[in-house]
Amino acid sequence: MKRSVLKFGGSSVSDFLKIKNLAGYLKSRIENQEQLVVVVSAMGKTTDDLLTSVSHLTAKPNELDLAMLLNTGEQQTISFLSLALNDLNVRTKPLTGYQAGIETRGNHLKSKISSIKADFLKELFESNDLLIVAGFQGFNEFGELTTLGRGGSDTTAVALAAALDCTCEIYTDVTGVFSTDPRIYKDAKRRELISFEEMMEMSALGAGVLETRSVELANNHSIPIYLAKTLSDEKGTWIVPNDQMLERKAVTGVALDKEMAHVTITHPLETKAFLTDLFSELEGSEINIDMISQIQNKDGLQLSFTVKESEESVLNDLFDLLKKSYENLYVTIETTYCKLSVIGAGMRDMTGVASKIFNTLLTSNIPFYQVTTSEISVSYVLDEKNGEYAARLLCQAFDL
Amino acid sequence: MKRSVLKFGGSSVSDFLKIKNLAGYLKSRIENQEQLVVVVSAMGKTTDDLLTSVSHLTAKPNELDLAMLLNTGEQQTISFLSLALNDLNVRTKPLTGYQAGIETRGNHLKSKISSIKADFLKELFESNDLLIVAGFQGFNEFGELTTLGRGGSDTTAVALAAALDCTCEIYTDVTGVFSTDPRIYKDAKRRELISFEEMMEMSALGAGVLETRSVELANNHSIPIYLAKTLSDEKGTWIVPNDQMLERKAVTGVALDKEMAHVTITHPLETKAFLTDLFSELEGSEINIDMISQIQNKDGLQLSFTVKESEESVLNDLFDLLKKSYENLYVTIETTYCKLSVIGAGMRDMTGVASKIFNTLLTSNIPFYQVTTSEISVSYVLDEKNGEYAARLLCQAFDL
Repeated sequence: MKRSVLKFGGSSVSDFLKIKNLAGYLKSRIENQEQLVVVVSAMGKTTDDLLTSVSHLTAKPNELDLAMLLNTGEQQTISFLSLALNDLNVRTKPLTGYQAGIETRGNHLKSKISSIKADFLKELFESNDLLIVAGFQGFNEFGELTTLGRGGSDTTAVALAAALDCTCEIYTDVTGVFSTDPRIYKDAKRRELISFEEMMEMSALGAGVLETRSVELANNHSIPIYLAKTLSDEKGTWIVPNDQMLERKAVTGVALDKEMAHVTITHPLETKAFLTDLFSELEGSEINIDMISQIQNKDGLQLSFTVKESEESVLNDLFDLLKKSYENLYVTIETTYCKLSVIGAGMRDMTGVASKIFNTLLTSNIPFYQVTTSEISVSYVLDEKNGEYAARLLCQAFDL
Repeated sequence: MKRSVLKFGGSSVSDFLKIKNLAGYLKSRIENQEQLVVVVSAMGKTTDDLLTSVSHLTAKPNELDLAMLLNTGEQQTISFLSLALNDLNVRTKPLTGYQAGIETRGNHLKSKISSIKADFLKELFESNDLLIVAGFQGFNEFGELTTLGRGGSDTTAVALAAALDCTCEIYTDVTGVFSTDPRIYKDAKRRELISFEEMMEMSALGAGVLETRSVELANNHSIPIYLAKTLSDEKGTWIVPNDQMLERKAVTGVALDKEMAHVTITHPLETKAFLTDLFSELEGSEINIDMISQIQNKDGLQLSFTVKESEESVLNDLFDLLKKSYENLYVTIETTYCKLSVIGAGMRDMTGVASKIFNTLLTSNIPFYQVTTSEISVSYVLDEKNGEYAARLLCQAFDL
């Protein structure tokens, strides 16, 4: 009997009609002699609503309490979906993260999965047609409830597929992976197949259909992921291990990230101590930085990097603190820029990609302020107003 | 250090301001060198709202799913209260029924507590000022989530007090126990002290401040209960073991139950078989009956009893079924009656109580249709329209 893990996000279960329709779809899969583990998120905006409620009680919520509170969102969804499936005579077993044995380590709100009771889950199929597991949830070594952080339900699904050694289907409100955002370039092509490596670059670079973390996990365990639109007949995209990629185009995607800020720091002296302090503060505040460029010359240090635009106020606090220890520290945080990335696993084997991008931007008079490259991507910092136009030009240039 | 279990019902935690105020009150108790276990219910109408949601999905909800869903209500309250207390620097440990080790047996929705991990809870006080336990919740031998049924949070609180061998304070929106409902008789006196036995009669007879079940549990373990109004300076009522009652008035309370139906059954033949079938059907439908009177003479059987008015439609179905097996079965269900009960633990030792009630009703021309007596109560079935007037007359007669 074929076994699969299926994951449905918050927008796929945002009201009771959607839950009923989903139950009908799952029943049809069961009747097709499949064994399904269904992972669901909290309904619609439930998690955000709970966070708003918390703000009435405290400005600095305790992590343990908050994880316990957020856990109720997914627990409600698994109950509702199980009620709807039982109404259709499907024998279900709804399981919280704790009940499914999803053990985690670390921070209550950004936990990492350390183990899953796979044998227990397999046994449950002896008396159930379908298991429903609450996404996003886990428990730690003290028996306390934890959450896996935003996008955590994808991680739950991939981790379950890895533990049960089966494929993972992730359903959202988009139809698979496109070479670029179809809202930017209407002729963007849907990819039938994409490698984990490319998908990771796409996610990390802002084309966030799937969290990088869950793609990494799938890559580590070679679990193929099928990404498609919930209850739709449109075909989705298979994300597969790199060695399963037959076709290999040089360039396979263009990702545009407008929600970024570009930080430039200049300091005439004390470079080493300053950098140590800066990176330890950034780590302490859990700020991820990207596109790091560092120049050091007779005028001192010049350091640039990009961060999420939402981190701007945390960054301002952080630099205010650093300025107390470092005189003559000069910082600019620019939020009118965007990051444009060109991605392709074949890029490393082929020449001319970087120069083709360079020429495309240059001949169209689009200035750029920073460039960084990885093995399978090239990223440019541009003015936000030029972002979409540049993305379209590059899609045309690479026939995406 | 004095240890107590405190229980706050849904109306005491129905909004965030109430939760904040409750947190402030609990902090003041902690500062007074007390060890507290706080049991809370779901906020306000949460449980009812969840049940309404379920009706969108299925007409016959699966018990396991429903118990899992309802559990989220209390889990949210313990999280919110813990967040509010942590904001005041009180070290809390919020615990679901599962985490508190509240093991149950039986039906998922009407479970009975079989054990509580008292030692584990005591150890938690080594690193916490206060434990917050979700009321109403438990788990069964299969690790499935269960609920204790309506009023279950009181049961959780009393069971915790029994396991920890301490007193139990139950806070609601009424100020303790009155000799009768103050809405009926404005001069009704608050009782400072009442015995478990009297309280059980009061509860069972419709003056439902506390569920009978939790009073029984407190009685079995001799756990004194203090019943008072949430965050109020008004004194409440201590409910204590019978042998701790010093004063013993003959009559201590008058309870009026208007939400009752009076059933009269007549059948000319086949008495024994019919009664066996009737009581097994009533048990199967989980209908509690009260005030049973049975007369058997040459005209056959005449049986009367009272039930909750809300059971009327279930009863009608039940009698329709019985009429198929028993011809000449004649049933009337009267909903315009009420039940008036006079309660007092001292009643059994003193004479004249029944005759005083009898005379009071008779001289005021209040007809009654049935009378039953127990060791510590006398109940009358009257016309509903006479109920409140009769209650006031009896309160005056017995100086309540």
